[in-house]
Amino acid sequence: MYRVRMARTKGDHESRRRDVSEAVWQVMAARGFAGLTLRAVAAELGATTGLLTHYFPTKRALVEYALDLLEQRTVARPRRRAGKGLAAFRDALLDILPLTPAATDSNRIWVSSWDAALSDPALSTDYARKYAQGRARLTERVAAAQQLGELPSGDPERIAAGAQSFVLGLVVQALFDPAAFPPQRQTELLDDYLAAVAAGGGPGVSG
Amino acid sequence: MYRVRMARTKGDHESRRRDVSEAVWQVMAARGFAGLTLRAVAAELGATTGLLTHYFPTKRALVEYALDLLEQRTVARPRRRAGKGLAAFRDALLDILPLTPAATDSNRIWVSSWDAALSDPALSTDYARKYAQGRARLTERVAAAQQLGELPSGDPERIAAGAQSFVLGLVVQALFDPAAFPPQRQTELLDDYLAAVAAGGGPGVSG
Repeated sequence: MYRVRMARTKGDHESRRRDVSEAVWQVMAARGFAGLTLRAVAAELGATTGLLTHYFPTKRALVEYALDLLEQRTVARPRRRAGKGLAAFRDALLDILPLTPAATDSNRIWVSSWDAALSDPALSTDYARKYAQGRARLTERVAAAQQLGELPSGDPERIAAGAQSFVLGLVVQALFDPAAFPPQRQTELLDDYLAAVAAGGGPGVSG
Repeated sequence: MYRVRMARTKGDHESRRRDVSEAVWQVMAARGFAGLTLRAVAAELGATTGLLTHYFPTKRALVEYALDLLEQRTVARPRRRAGKGLAAFRDALLDILPLTPAATDSNRIWVSSWDAALSDPALSTDYARKYAQGRARLTERVAAAQQLGELPSGDPERIAAGAQSFVLGLVVQALFDPAAFPPQRQTELLDDYLAAVAAGGGPGVSG
């Protein structure tokens, strides 16, 4: 009986942690980092702020938790894996765009985190590293598409940097104006971009 | 003498207003909207928070002032006016990028404001309107470049939306990683983009 109670307590604890994570996520999706407070998370959770100070003794602890959660959920998000070559490059870019409600929440939280990240040197360095890793992964896909003859020659890193810029800006546009940038239009604009790059006006051609 | 004193007081008042504006701007450029507080502005100004409550009775008043200041300085910023056709389109895009310290501050403040803007429905609508106006101005330049035969045919609004996405994302990349995206590289990436669009892989060709 003692063991059963231990197990139930542990299960309750895990379940409560998941509830807290979800409440933090919902508050960020609705109000951004600027609106992330113990009070708001407590209200979302239907709990007291007193309970939450057990998890987050300071505002900074809450923000760090939220940033970790954003990282974890981004890494764990579902990804397209169907294509190879140019199709795989396109898949990786589609994976970034806010084409679903879940991807919209996640992007909205990323964009919201930029304010805090830009004013914190350590966090800013960390973000720069993350985006550089993202470009490195895209560069591999560009190189693979070039080997298949689907993209013209030219510095693959430069094509990847351009594509990353394009999708990040499209994310921002779609978040502010979802009516003007529904999923279909986002996809069309990305396909315009890829068609332009494939048409041969890439780096080394102009530069 | 009374009139002279009035005039001097008015001059002092205007001068103080400019000082306050500059202090608000510097705080935003360094710490973003998340770090915009009466205390930080007072410290930047070398004044008491008491004096500042005369200008900004509430935090909301300070934020609204800061947003107005951002709008005013963006409208009043120097712009390239040399080119026509495709060159004018390129100029308009270069005007957005963080190619100078002043443009970097301004962009950093814009990006910082996105968190607040996305969580405030009225502000979000206002931002969507601003970006739509920006696209409309770019669309005119695309259409002019098409008439000169410098860009291929295809929906000019769609080319403008793609270009706006591209530069906004490049702004974000350059802010986080100025070492990887110095002014020359930003310009090269933009020129890659324009060359790709000019090469004919634009909307209507792919779609």
